[in-house]
Amino acid sequence: MNGADSLVATLVGQGVDICFANPGTSEMHFLAALGNNPKMRSVLCLFEGVATGAADGWYRMKDTPASTLLHLGPGLANGLANIHNAKRASSGMVNVVGEHSVSHLKYDPPLTSDIEGLARPLCHWVRRAESPDTIAWDAAQAVAKASEHPGQIATLILPGDTSWQAVSATPAAPPVRTAARKAPGAARIEHVVRVLRSGEPALIVLANKATRGGALEKAGRVAAATGAVLGSQFFTARLERGAGRVPIARIPYAVAQATAFLKDFRHIITVETREPVAFFAYPDKPSLLKAEGTLVHTLVEADEDSELAFDMLLQALGAPHVAPVLQPRIETPVPTGALNPASIAHALAAALPEHCIVVDESLTTGRESMSLTMGGLPHDLINNMGGSIGYATPVATGAALACPDRRVFCMVGDGSAMYTIQSLWTQAREGLNVTTIIFANNSYAILKAEYANMGAGAPGERALSMIDIDKPSIDWLAMAKSMGVPAVAVDTAERFYKALVDSTREPGPCLIEVRL
Amino acid sequence: MNGADSLVATLVGQGVDICFANPGTSEMHFLAALGNNPKMRSVLCLFEGVATGAADGWYRMKDTPASTLLHLGPGLANGLANIHNAKRASSGMVNVVGEHSVSHLKYDPPLTSDIEGLARPLCHWVRRAESPDTIAWDAAQAVAKASEHPGQIATLILPGDTSWQAVSATPAAPPVRTAARKAPGAARIEHVVRVLRSGEPALIVLANKATRGGALEKAGRVAAATGAVLGSQFFTARLERGAGRVPIARIPYAVAQATAFLKDFRHIITVETREPVAFFAYPDKPSLLKAEGTLVHTLVEADEDSELAFDMLLQALGAPHVAPVLQPRIETPVPTGALNPASIAHALAAALPEHCIVVDESLTTGRESMSLTMGGLPHDLINNMGGSIGYATPVATGAALACPDRRVFCMVGDGSAMYTIQSLWTQAREGLNVTTIIFANNSYAILKAEYANMGAGAPGERALSMIDIDKPSIDWLAMAKSMGVPAVAVDTAERFYKALVDSTREPGPCLIEVRL
Repeated sequence: MNGADSLVATLVGQGVDICFANPGTSEMHFLAALGNNPKMRSVLCLFEGVATGAADGWYRMKDTPASTLLHLGPGLANGLANIHNAKRASSGMVNVVGEHSVSHLKYDPPLTSDIEGLARPLCHWVRRAESPDTIAWDAAQAVAKASEHPGQIATLILPGDTSWQAVSATPAAPPVRTAARKAPGAARIEHVVRVLRSGEPALIVLANKATRGGALEKAGRVAAATGAVLGSQFFTARLERGAGRVPIARIPYAVAQATAFLKDFRHIITVETREPVAFFAYPDKPSLLKAEGTLVHTLVEADEDSELAFDMLLQALGAPHVAPVLQPRIETPVPTGALNPASIAHALAAALPEHCIVVDESLTTGRESMSLTMGGLPHDLINNMGGSIGYATPVATGAALACPDRRVFCMVGDGSAMYTIQSLWTQAREGLNVTTIIFANNSYAILKAEYANMGAGAPGERALSMIDIDKPSIDWLAMAKSMGVPAVAVDTAERFYKALVDSTREPGPCLIEVRL
Repeated sequence: MNGADSLVATLVGQGVDICFANPGTSEMHFLAALGNNPKMRSVLCLFEGVATGAADGWYRMKDTPASTLLHLGPGLANGLANIHNAKRASSGMVNVVGEHSVSHLKYDPPLTSDIEGLARPLCHWVRRAESPDTIAWDAAQAVAKASEHPGQIATLILPGDTSWQAVSATPAAPPVRTAARKAPGAARIEHVVRVLRSGEPALIVLANKATRGGALEKAGRVAAATGAVLGSQFFTARLERGAGRVPIARIPYAVAQATAFLKDFRHIITVETREPVAFFAYPDKPSLLKAEGTLVHTLVEADEDSELAFDMLLQALGAPHVAPVLQPRIETPVPTGALNPASIAHALAAALPEHCIVVDESLTTGRESMSLTMGGLPHDLINNMGGSIGYATPVATGAALACPDRRVFCMVGDGSAMYTIQSLWTQAREGLNVTTIIFANNSYAILKAEYANMGAGAPGERALSMIDIDKPSIDWLAMAKSMGVPAVAVDTAERFYKALVDSTREPGPCLIEVRL
């Protein structure tokens, strides 16, 4: 047994049994170890941003970390944007980054870089595996760190010699740490009870683990008992929504709409999140979105147990058995005619099958219309928490591997899709049930609006040419074909609906180009 | 005039008149400033790794820096791998990285990250532009730093408010610094003269600016006068080669071949580089490639003037007028039949037009055979200095913009091409004269050899499945079509030759899939 074998055995032993890999020369022993361990599933990615994004998608659906394999500092660098997005989504992840052997590093060969320096700004935990005898403990620590609540980014640097040298002594099995979630303080609960009993308008903003399962259901009871409104940030790591679920109001993205939404609340109560802030700064707009005089109260900190908090709250309110108001099913007729945000959302509402997963990076197209799918069949909605474009197609890939029995609908703008389009190949390779929906408006459409929002005036011809991506326009049918994914283009709402339904009939990936 | 206008005006004033851009919301004022300045050329890239790689390609051909525009920390992260490659190639570059406004940062909005922390491991100079009044000086400093010899990576962080606020006072014009190259010390020259006069076998290893122009020609005179052999590392930033040029022997990549090549040299004399080291460490192979007993002498440090050094050397040797031995033209017949490394190289040797530029990331296919093109028409050869895969298609893009009258041949393996394949779109958009040659062996073929080299044994079925990229195989004709690049596939040497020649007949990009 060498260091690489010990590392893989430890990962598997600690429950990390999938590795999204983009290997290089210095990782050949790790690759061998992956191949030799029948309990480890290896998924090849043609670009590192696909690997880290897929690990994020895996965590979103499983609540347990996946591992990645990246090739030295530049390989890690290529994965960092989606590590940033995963970090902001509180997803746990264990990155294994190959490195030169200790004896070789001093010669500063071409691929040498400061891997710790690259990792630290975006990872919670960084360690260099110094010996094959201690790597099991390193790996166990990495998994424990990644498994904390909220999930953490753990990065283990694996020098070649640590990988290939024999383990000389079997170390004592590292302890498995379970991530106990902290209980919120009783004083805070009492304070929020007083706020909720005041009768003043209150918004409870739910995030992370509070937007699903028992926590969401109990939040619904609190809302029903007190009249508080349940809300979420515009972007949420994973939201259980649709008919039969407790509905959550979404704070709008645009600053003017968000402040209008928030202006009548006297209280904002935060659960695993903080008070709403604008995504970007604009010359003449506020950063904080609440009205003057609105009070912000923390109910649940990011590392605390929100389901327990709502239990405590219901007990203190004397309302443990109040039934939550649930979202009724809204039967949406199949839309016809022109494609626009509303008809697109109606087609989705009518077509999305029960228990599907929607990964949304549709930006302009989906931004204002996703509320129209609230009454669809129950589904999970995943958003981009870090704002770095190119998250959706990898996250959809990882989510589909995590939930092979559920179809994933990946809604993505054409500009966004191009950052990590290599995901399609992994979807074809693994036969994943992903329907990629490309909103092809041949433009970074969001920037057209933002140009005006920023007070930069009307974009001139030369500035516009840097926002449009229509010269040439991307041929999405050819792009899908190039990576082995069947595709169809649609230009009416009824054809879009039909393509969505058709995509659920056969296993495996497909792509729908929505021509706008 | 706002800060963004001042920044663009300064860049242009200092000679940086091209910007490879992937903009986001926080850069709208900079985008407006780019559009408003008729002396600035903006080139849109659909992924940041294309932007930074293109800036590298620009520098390789121009010896002056280009600028890039990247969107906050994650945008920089996506560009870092090719920044690493550029740094290792001693290419200068000015990166402008958008950032939240100062007033917004404290709320830690989603796209916030430690941009300085991400930049420092791979950039020589990092600064945050604090005010529109001082940004002209910041930008001038960035350009001065990037223009040093060797070229440096300068990264200027541009907060939104610095960008959009008005310049209140016109600052004194910043000084233009010219990068004076240092002269090598006379004692070192005298020492090398003694070595060269000893009659013992000597290899002069040339790099960076010494592999072209006057420096190369004078190195050739030194070789002719002393019997020393001229060599280069396996990878060189830019090499002028072909008929009529001073030929340079290439130190092989594989450790066994490299040590065999070097074993008979008593002296290794380095010029703008250091002694040869293995690219990777292997369990039972040396890191240093020279024979025991070989002495290493520094003739020219990285920041010194190699042409001046060879002038001094020729003077001291009393041989200023010795003629160099030049590479004779070798007329290569058009090869026929099966495609293999030799027939591929022969087709290239026969087809490459005079003064073309070859960007090589062909790895296994091109590695052992490029010497067969030594007698072709004079051309420039560009290699990957940093070892991070995905450099070739962006570098070819930048080189084609730098030299619109010269065709660029981008030789790239299929696996490598997939990292930054978005380059094709920019090539189509700008109508660039790039012939992309995809060596489609449906495999990370280099890793098959490295698996054995590493002593990991014969790869099992599961390990092999992580090295082959044939499920599905990539449809390169569809890939090229998707981004508006005409393409052809070839499966014989004569068809490859014909496709190469055909590609030179029309302006604009094309792609040749070489089916192996």
